[in-house]
This record gives sequence, structure tokens and C-alpha cells, in this order.
Amino acid sequence: MKRTRIADVLHKWQVIGAGSMVNLKGWVRTKRGNKNVAFIALNDGSIIHSIQIVVDLAAFDEATMKLITTGACISVNGILVESPGQGQAVELQAKEIEVYGTADAETYPLQKKGHTLEFLREIAHLRPRTNTFGAVLRIRHAMAFAIHKYFNDNGFYYLHTPIVTGSDAEGAGAMFRVTTLDPVKPPLTETGEVDYTQDFFGKATNLTVSGQLEGELGALALSNIYTFGPTFRAENSNTPRHLAEFWMIEPEMAFYDITDNMDLAEDFLKYLVRYALEHCMDDLEFLNKMYDNEL
Amino acid sequence: MKRTRIADVLHKWQVIGAGSMVNLKGWVRTKRGNKNVAFIALNDGSIIHSIQIVVDLAAFDEATMKLITTGACISVNGILVESPGQGQAVELQAKEIEVYGTADAETYPLQKKGHTLEFLREIAHLRPRTNTFGAVLRIRHAMAFAIHKYFNDNGFYYLHTPIVTGSDAEGAGAMFRVTTLDPVKPPLTETGEVDYTQDFFGKATNLTVSGQLEGELGALALSNIYTFGPTFRAENSNTPRHLAEFWMIEPEMAFYDITDNMDLAEDFLKYLVRYALEHCMDDLEFLNKMYDNEL
Repeated sequence: MKRTRIADVLHKWQVIGAGSMVNLKGWVRTKRGNKNVAFIALNDGSIIHSIQIVVDLAAFDEATMKLITTGACISVNGILVESPGQGQAVELQAKEIEVYGTADAETYPLQKKGHTLEFLREIAHLRPRTNTFGAVLRIRHAMAFAIHKYFNDNGFYYLHTPIVTGSDAEGAGAMFRVTTLDPVKPPLTETGEVDYTQDFFGKATNLTVSGQLEGELGALALSNIYTFGPTFRAENSNTPRHLAEFWMIEPEMAFYDITDNMDLAEDFLKYLVRYALEHCMDDLEFLNKMYDNEL
Repeated sequence: MKRTRIADVLHKWQVIGAGSMVNLKGWVRTKRGNKNVAFIALNDGSIIHSIQIVVDLAAFDEATMKLITTGACISVNGILVESPGQGQAVELQAKEIEVYGTADAETYPLQKKGHTLEFLREIAHLRPRTNTFGAVLRIRHAMAFAIHKYFNDNGFYYLHTPIVTGSDAEGAGAMFRVTTLDPVKPPLTETGEVDYTQDFFGKATNLTVSGQLEGELGALALSNIYTFGPTFRAENSNTPRHLAEFWMIEPEMAFYDITDNMDLAEDFLKYLVRYALEHCMDDLEFLNKMYDNEL
């Protein structure tokens, strides 16, 4: 059977139709129940909400059911039904379950309880499975798409400005050096400096701190351009306001005056906020509740 | 008067309406004519085609007209009229012209004649003003947007995987070192190797050769993800098939089998080709004529 995304089941179940057989695949968030029935919360990352899988234990092998613990990866065929319980419109009555991967309850670190961000930092490979990082990643996706859509719909062209460069824009910050020279004994000039003519590009290069210079040249030919790519700052400043690597948006427009600039900034930000409210409400509600109730 | 993009004038002149007063701004491609009338081909990069500006010389100052040479930047208010000439649906009858910037005909390198790509390499800052680079940049924009639109519409989430990293993915190629250590005398360990614990990130880092590792972790949480970002290979191989810096698309899907992969690749490529044909026909026709008639 072809898999259905849980986001589609939860948002479009009336189109799919109660009573339909669907296949869901994902990772188990929790399992609870009694000796007759098990309730599995299954999540596939397509949406912050998990769907409830109802398992009539009489119809399933006990050994298989033991493998279904938090973190396990399973595939379920079942009947989509309207849910009698609160907090969910539909649930799935399991008919077949296949276990793709197990997660040892003793060692799998993402259990039902909340985890601190500091703890999650130590299991970076599992962070996207948490509600918090899932929400952030889905919102970041939506915002990235909205950025491209806004500029595309408004006649701007997207420029991929260079990442490795010999320029430092307008001296925007400390830079990372990019090199393939021998790290211990680099070739030196007669005056004892590094001889960058022998480096990969034949000159000293660094990671870009801004695509502005190339963006301005693009605007002086294509009128309206924007960049949206990674930029780098080697400031050794460990605060929430500094990142060594971050993605930055830079629009550059020929023939704009200060009023045009202000109108663009205002219209752009309003568009992004509106897009987030229309497309990310589930995730915003979660972050609003858990992290900042002024979102 | 608010500026209108030349792309909008040429594609939507029937909506704007013949007889309307419009303002166009851009760069002069050519000027020709006789002692009574001048024809200026004006381009603003929004579209490969220039629009013809018709100037009744009796109504304009001779000194101003002398400044209008190939490469000059001007603003024109004029009446949009259906064109009696061939090869253009509409032209502009100039009423007011303002010269924003001049281009000395003796030294401005982009003249009416064709230029080789090797010559254009030496004036990289002006390349986007040529038909060839303009076409390539507009098509590249359209393809980048289509890539994001395809994945967004199909339930994939966009991941920004790290650019500076300590990993080398699956050993995809030679890597660029990223460092802030003293280039002449880096700190060494007791065994004479570079002591990267003293580097910016406390370890040896390089530019990513692939976002695959992080993409796979994302797919094991969000089901379907894609990356679309710059990647780097330090191979010293100067062929048309190698670039040191290039943008790469990497979709990663949980629960996909080989047939799913093949279907995705086929559907994706068909979508992009169709999108290009629908949105980039002007530029494709130019490249087809000038560079490769099998496009």
C-alpha cells in the first residue's frame, strides 16, 4: 500500500474519507493501554501532531507488540475512523503492523519526558525528532519558501553570489580563511609571508561575509535581484546574537529610493508573517505554548 | 512617475494600454537614427528583449542626447504605442529623458558587437548586462524557484545543512580547509601536527562536500527533506565538468524504495523542464540560437 503522510491524514481526512484503509509509517512517540488494547502515538515529522493508532491486542502477536516502544519505526495498515476521544478528529484502527526498526527503551535517549535544549545538543542526530526542532525546521522551511515566492512574484531574480571569495565586502566582520596549502609548513615568500599564489585559487581566499558587492553588480544589470545564502563571521563571540554561519537575505534594487526601500521592507515582512500564520499555525501554537507566549 | 519593468511592458502592454504614459529605466544597448529622430534600444535586465524608445530630436536638447551612448543609464517618460516596425509589438515615444549615468564610448567595453566568453571573463562585473549572462541568470533563477516549488508542493522540507563541517560525508572529494589559525606559524602539537584544538571551532573543519549525512538524519525525523545549497570540491581539475563551488540538490526520503526514487527523479525533472518551457521561452530561444540549437 502507498504511504500517506500523517499531515495529510490529519488535515484532509474528510477528503480521504472515514472508513478508508490507509498506510502510515513513522516513529513511535508513546505507547500506552491495557491488556486488551494499545494506543500508539505515531509521528512522521510531516506535522507536529501524532496520530493515535488503536491496536486490538487479541489480533496481534505479543512479541511484535513488545518491539513497539518509544522511538521504534513502524508501518501500519489500518482503517481511518472518527475518534471518540478528545483532542483528535481521527484515529487509525490497526489491521497490520510491520516493525522497521526497534529502539531499545534502556538506551534510546528521547523518552516521553521533556528534554532541555542543552541535553538535546548532545544528541544532535536525534534533535529533528523532537517537537521543538521539528517545529523550528518546518517553520524555517515555510519561511525559506515564502522568501523565494515573494521575490519571484515581485520580479526579483535570485543570485547565487560566491561563497569562497577574495573580497571582504564592506569589512563586515572577521573572516574564515579557505585554503588547501600545507597546514604545517605553508610555502612562504621571500619576506616570510604565506605565498598564496601557490594556493588553490592562486590568491588568498575566505568565506563570504556578504553577497552585497556581487548583488549590487547584478542589480545594475537585472534591476531587481536578491541573494539568500550562507554567510560567515569568524567573530569569537558566543552570544545568542552571533553565529559563525548563518543564511542571509540581501535584496539589491536599481532605481530605488529610500521610500521604495521602506515600502519593500514593510511589504516583505508583512508577507512573511502572513505566510507563517497561514501555513505554520500548528507549529507556532506549540512554540507559543512551550517557549514564548508572545509569538 | 513609478517605473514599469520592461518585461511587464512587453508581456502585458495590452493590459497597460496603448496610449498610456509610462516610465522606463534601464541601460542603453544601442542608439541609431538620423538628424530628425533617434531610436534607443533600452534594456533593464527584466527580460532579454530591449524596448525601442523613439526620440523626436526637435524636442530634446542636443547636449543631453550626446550623453546617451551604449551603456548609459537613463530614465524615460513616454507614451506607449503599437509599433509600426517589425520585431516589436510596442515602442515608447519619449516625452522626457533623464540621464542617470553616462558610459564613455571610448572605454565602455560592452559595445554592440558580440564578445567572446573569454573576453567577458575579464570584465566579470559587467557580464550580467550581456544577453548571454542575463539569459543564464534569469533561467537559473527560474530553475531555483521551480526546485523549491516542486519540493514544497510535494511535502518535502528544506534543510539548511552545515557548510562548515568536520565531516567529509562519504569521502566525496578533496576538501577546502577552513581555519582562523595563524597562517605562517600555526600552533603545533608535541608531535608536530597542527593543533586544531586551538582553531575557531576547536577542531579541524572544512567546507562541505555534501549535505547527505545531515539530510539523512532529517529524513529519519521529517520523512521527506531536501537540501539545496553550495558544496565544494578542492579537486585541481580544470574541465567543464568540475567546479570548486557549486549548488547541489539532495532529496532524502524515509520509507522510499528504488521505484519511489525513480518516480521522484522522473517527475522532478519533467516538472523542471516544463517550468522552464513555460517561464523562460525568451531566454531559451536566445541560447538555442546563439549557443546550442538542441536546447
